[in-house]
Amino acid sequence: MPVALAKAAYLDATLPIADRVVDLLGRMTLEEKAAQMACVWNEKVDKLLGPDGGFSPERAAEHFGHGEGLGQVGRPGDAHGGASPAEFAKLTNDIQRYFLENSRLGIPVLFHDECLHGLVARDATSFAQPIGLAAAFNPELVRRVYEITARESRACGVHQALAPVVDVARDPRWGRVEETFGEDPHLVAELGVAAVRGFQGDREVGAADRVICTLKHFAAHGQPESGNNCAPVSVSERHLRETFLHPFERAIREGGAMSVMASYNEIDGVPSHASRWLLQTVLREEWDFDGTVVSDYYAIRELWDRPDLYGHHVAANREEAAALAIRAGVNIELPEPDCYTVVADLVRDGAVAEAEIDELVGKLLAHKFQLGLFENPYVEPEHAKTVVGCEEHAAVALESARQVITLLKNDGGVLPLDTGKVRTVAVIGPNAHRTVLGGYSGVPKEFVTVFDGLRAAFGAEAEVLYAEGCQITIGGGWFEDEVVPSNAEEDRRLIAEAVELAKRADLVVLVVGGNEQTSREAWMANHLGDRTDLDMVGRQDELVDALHGVGKPIVSLLFNGRPLAVNNLAEKSAALLECWYLGQAAGTAVADVLLGRHNPGGKLPITIPRSVGHLPAYYNHRPSARRGYLFDEVTPLYPFGYGLSYTTFELGALTLDDESIAVGESTQLRVTVTNTGQRAGAQVVQLYIRDLVSSVTRPVRELKGFQRVELEPNQSQEVVFPITADRLAFWNLDKQFVVEPGDFELFVGFDCGASQSQRLSVLPSLSN
Amino acid sequence: MPVALAKAAYLDATLPIADRVVDLLGRMTLEEKAAQMACVWNEKVDKLLGPDGGFSPERAAEHFGHGEGLGQVGRPGDAHGGASPAEFAKLTNDIQRYFLENSRLGIPVLFHDECLHGLVARDATSFAQPIGLAAAFNPELVRRVYEITARESRACGVHQALAPVVDVARDPRWGRVEETFGEDPHLVAELGVAAVRGFQGDREVGAADRVICTLKHFAAHGQPESGNNCAPVSVSERHLRETFLHPFERAIREGGAMSVMASYNEIDGVPSHASRWLLQTVLREEWDFDGTVVSDYYAIRELWDRPDLYGHHVAANREEAAALAIRAGVNIELPEPDCYTVVADLVRDGAVAEAEIDELVGKLLAHKFQLGLFENPYVEPEHAKTVVGCEEHAAVALESARQVITLLKNDGGVLPLDTGKVRTVAVIGPNAHRTVLGGYSGVPKEFVTVFDGLRAAFGAEAEVLYAEGCQITIGGGWFEDEVVPSNAEEDRRLIAEAVELAKRADLVVLVVGGNEQTSREAWMANHLGDRTDLDMVGRQDELVDALHGVGKPIVSLLFNGRPLAVNNLAEKSAALLECWYLGQAAGTAVADVLLGRHNPGGKLPITIPRSVGHLPAYYNHRPSARRGYLFDEVTPLYPFGYGLSYTTFELGALTLDDESIAVGESTQLRVTVTNTGQRAGAQVVQLYIRDLVSSVTRPVRELKGFQRVELEPNQSQEVVFPITADRLAFWNLDKQFVVEPGDFELFVGFDCGASQSQRLSVLPSLSN
Repeated sequence: MPVALAKAAYLDATLPIADRVVDLLGRMTLEEKAAQMACVWNEKVDKLLGPDGGFSPERAAEHFGHGEGLGQVGRPGDAHGGASPAEFAKLTNDIQRYFLENSRLGIPVLFHDECLHGLVARDATSFAQPIGLAAAFNPELVRRVYEITARESRACGVHQALAPVVDVARDPRWGRVEETFGEDPHLVAELGVAAVRGFQGDREVGAADRVICTLKHFAAHGQPESGNNCAPVSVSERHLRETFLHPFERAIREGGAMSVMASYNEIDGVPSHASRWLLQTVLREEWDFDGTVVSDYYAIRELWDRPDLYGHHVAANREEAAALAIRAGVNIELPEPDCYTVVADLVRDGAVAEAEIDELVGKLLAHKFQLGLFENPYVEPEHAKTVVGCEEHAAVALESARQVITLLKNDGGVLPLDTGKVRTVAVIGPNAHRTVLGGYSGVPKEFVTVFDGLRAAFGAEAEVLYAEGCQITIGGGWFEDEVVPSNAEEDRRLIAEAVELAKRADLVVLVVGGNEQTSREAWMANHLGDRTDLDMVGRQDELVDALHGVGKPIVSLLFNGRPLAVNNLAEKSAALLECWYLGQAAGTAVADVLLGRHNPGGKLPITIPRSVGHLPAYYNHRPSARRGYLFDEVTPLYPFGYGLSYTTFELGALTLDDESIAVGESTQLRVTVTNTGQRAGAQVVQLYIRDLVSSVTRPVRELKGFQRVELEPNQSQEVVFPITADRLAFWNLDKQFVVEPGDFELFVGFDCGASQSQRLSVLPSLSN
Repeated sequence: MPVALAKAAYLDATLPIADRVVDLLGRMTLEEKAAQMACVWNEKVDKLLGPDGGFSPERAAEHFGHGEGLGQVGRPGDAHGGASPAEFAKLTNDIQRYFLENSRLGIPVLFHDECLHGLVARDATSFAQPIGLAAAFNPELVRRVYEITARESRACGVHQALAPVVDVARDPRWGRVEETFGEDPHLVAELGVAAVRGFQGDREVGAADRVICTLKHFAAHGQPESGNNCAPVSVSERHLRETFLHPFERAIREGGAMSVMASYNEIDGVPSHASRWLLQTVLREEWDFDGTVVSDYYAIRELWDRPDLYGHHVAANREEAAALAIRAGVNIELPEPDCYTVVADLVRDGAVAEAEIDELVGKLLAHKFQLGLFENPYVEPEHAKTVVGCEEHAAVALESARQVITLLKNDGGVLPLDTGKVRTVAVIGPNAHRTVLGGYSGVPKEFVTVFDGLRAAFGAEAEVLYAEGCQITIGGGWFEDEVVPSNAEEDRRLIAEAVELAKRADLVVLVVGGNEQTSREAWMANHLGDRTDLDMVGRQDELVDALHGVGKPIVSLLFNGRPLAVNNLAEKSAALLECWYLGQAAGTAVADVLLGRHNPGGKLPITIPRSVGHLPAYYNHRPSARRGYLFDEVTPLYPFGYGLSYTTFELGALTLDDESIAVGESTQLRVTVTNTGQRAGAQVVQLYIRDLVSSVTRPVRELKGFQRVELEPNQSQEVVFPITADRLAFWNLDKQFVVEPGDFELFVGFDCGASQSQRLSVLPSLSN
């Protein structure tokens, strides 16, 4: 660090951060400010790395020898690099040291990385995908998962996680459903707040095991037109607020999320990266957000036009795109210098005021102070090695996987398996014995397949056989552009083989669904992952039919990133379990459930529709939304909140602390839940509310509370749901968030069809 | 008429209507005013008719002996009554006479009726459904069709037509697509204006052959959630205005439409019947609309709750529902007295001011003056007999049917048929020999089936055979609640029979698609017409496959109300024609086209998608809307504006009168189109515009002009497209409708894929 600066105010950790920011900004040239708004993608741009993947001082000098510094480095842990945790930590140290020692003001760089369900890096603990985590309906679990993710990330030198995704997923054709916590705004908000707390603690990001989190994707990314990723969202402001903005608002106000990523899509013709209304009026003015807004990768460029993709064409060139994003309030451009390369020119040309740049850069600098990077810029490679993917973390991965598994059908109680009777098990299917982690995954130390898990669990008690059955796609992974469909001839050979195997077995465990190629983020016109139907890809249904013909009971497991309309599979299976993606301990968790060592308690965080033609099929629709279809049911295949157990539960009477309250007041709803069966198990008690008459239409019911309880047989527990004003309120005609006097019906049950209910009267406020 | 009133000012036809309204209102009791806001549905409510279907003075006296009068009588021509035109005229005269003679102030009643594609009555001329009429891309044709409809209606005593439907159809699952002019706002607006002029002339509704028309359904009814009729529309205000409101605005401002029907659906949580913003701010204040707003049938009740259906629950009872609709500005409740029965009570209780009622009733009275009903209340039964369904009208029905037919495929020029070579024709299919008119149809004097038409056309030249092939549904019609699927066994017998027939023929004419039960208005939870897929219903594809196996060339005709994803049919047919519903002359028009007596020139007014999973699939999407799908094409099966001909056309160079204009200025684009083939034919030259860079996103292209030209071989014609400010404008960030300086690309061609283009520069306005 240049010695002359050693005593500058911004380096004095005893001063308030605001003062340090002001001091530092006052010393910076325009170019140095612009440099803070830029990022380098470690993996893709060879500005910092040498051919061996390690830090290259020569390359760095070539690109950053000007000493102006750099804002961020993106995705240092990219699994393609294959760096071990210790190497990872060394790399971030090397880069950090370069910038500290070779920039005029010694401003540290900030490393961001993907952390969707664990850090995307070698050996990092890989948890269930968010759509699976959501199925546990367990905020504490989500908090723990992201706390571990933060710890492993920070150990490697990562300071900001590009997670959690708090999009509300309303179209299962979209390939990114797996990255979300599902279709319900309340559930997404609760889990979003928990995720933020896991990453940041109580904004304790100066600690050695916390990171800044980034809420994605602001906003309404989860209802893209025609199911195409990044497609426009035409949604009314009321629905935008109540559905899509709600989780962001809560994750910011309650969770204290420090960063937000703007979304690629446009809303009402305005791309989010150019939306001053969204990024200033709503985010900063209404919600008092004081963190940073980061661009989605290349999204500022897309305001103009992006080669080999589709731009929004609200800018005619790089300069206009940059100016739009600056005025909207996008603090930094990810992942490469592109449009923001003209920041200094824009100021010099008078297109943008330097004060606007100061405003944006100040927030970025604040993060670096908050993270303590001026005082503690480096990490310990040995610590990274110890922490990343450690046993303690693996145990949480297993526990979370168990809680995800959702039992959708269990005819005649085929599950749990009677290990005393089952002698031969045929484990069949394209997902039975391969690594199925979903998108944005690292490479965990170990992945337990279903076949592995069952073999280990049965041990000598049964013969566990395996056949692939058919393929979903051929080879390739999440990153590959081209997806090769399975081969019909080869599939039929595999089906025949599987049938022979099934004949030898007492029971078939069928593991089907989708994979990382059939449901994924479409990031180019030639890299696709959105679909036009919700059937299982390829010849999986032929496999189902063939195995059903054998006559042995079929226990089916779905691994998939989006809800699939598995009418045929459900009909022909004795038991059906939705696993989504379970993370590294998948097979162990599945075996625990099938053998009854763990009683499944997962619930659907998203509706499983009967077909793609039923979309949108979310449960919390308006009263007039589901009149019915000719020759088809309007109901879903499996509803939101649904999931069975090996035991039975009963609810007692619903009791309200107050049968009527005044507007603005709160009360509580109490109900006792009892495990009336023979096994310990978890149940998610769910509260849905309906405003019976309102000045604008309200959903037929909305989830407004849930609690996961674990009960021994005959054990009871009282669940208390707070009925607070914010759970009764809605956006009225004047777009004010209000509670209106009148009656509300409160439903409690074990899925969104909950039928027990209690009436609450809300009286006009006395003060009005 | 009470003698004492004979000289009252409101009876003086020489006075301005506004004065007559004021005079009359001043004489009316609150009950008499409320009576004007009420309607009786002739058919459903036996308040006026006796058991024989004729007028019953006793019934009338029982219900209207109070002398307070009645606003409207609905659907006197309902085909179920089966009244001949003369009987129909006599009935309206009888009812009219009763009210003139038995109400205190002698206010005539107004009769409204359905006129979707001709008056819904016995013997009335039945035209092609609007989705078909739209395929002609011919506003003058639409004007003539509705001029005739007006003439036939008025002859029977009908004063107001509940047509045209100017909804923009964005979801083909919806059963009412057939009632619309398709998916494009500009096309719908042009045809909507033409329809208004056909009905009303230049607001000459006092004439004996004009009626007031009613724009339906205000607003955004054409994009119901999940494709369910009446479902909510969550659409941003910008898209609402540019897509759904645009045709209404033009039909009112340019066409002078005098009445509007509010829509069942809610927009942004606000049901249209309760939307003061929609019915006052937009309709009356922005657009200067001074006509009436009628409720959709039972829709005011649905603000509350409707037994056996789904209400919006924005009202707790009848009184609240009525007050909401009154305040929003719904002038009259259709079709029965229900919520508006409390109008007088609401005024007495102070919930509604009498001035508000006067405002609503005044508009209703104005219509009766405008129609000249105080002076000429009766019609001539003999005239009705002469006019309704006359030869002159039938000729227009035939001509319009010819213009509808859209040739989608013609491999190897199989069409027109070589009558010299074809000896035996097998006409096969469930729509080949039955009446296919679509919803809201009367009973025309004659319906020519495809089989009839081809038999007559071939005469002795060829043997024309018929087989049903399979069924779509069994029996029943548009009105029946229950729809019975076809029977598999019977279908397979019919398929086998058809195969035998095909073997004997040189050619198969296959007539498939949908019917009045598979695509129709769902008006109850047990009367459905929306679908979850776009495949042909039943075993029609099995029929296609079986006939394809015979090996004879197949010429396929589609009769259907919605676009069907006929991938298989298109592949296996040598020629494919979309007929929609062609009206009473269907078979004659089809024969004319197949035999080359008429060269088809129809164009698709709506995209035919590849599957239901591609929805929405409209062509004028934003640039970022169609990234692509895994394992499927993102393109449609047949695009908007598409249609082939038996001849060929070429376009000359595009020339702009001015290569650059200032904001607010206009110019013209000229292009010469030449028939370069061997036959006379019609072509629709289409202009699409793209704003290359704009402050909010704009569609990839939008239809902004079209002209249908009829050309002899080698004949050329210059087409001149006005490029006016309103065709370049859009709703900007401030929700102002503006033209922004910049470049526009103008595409001209024969469908929405038009590739010839010319650049227009729009410069900043000098005055700014």
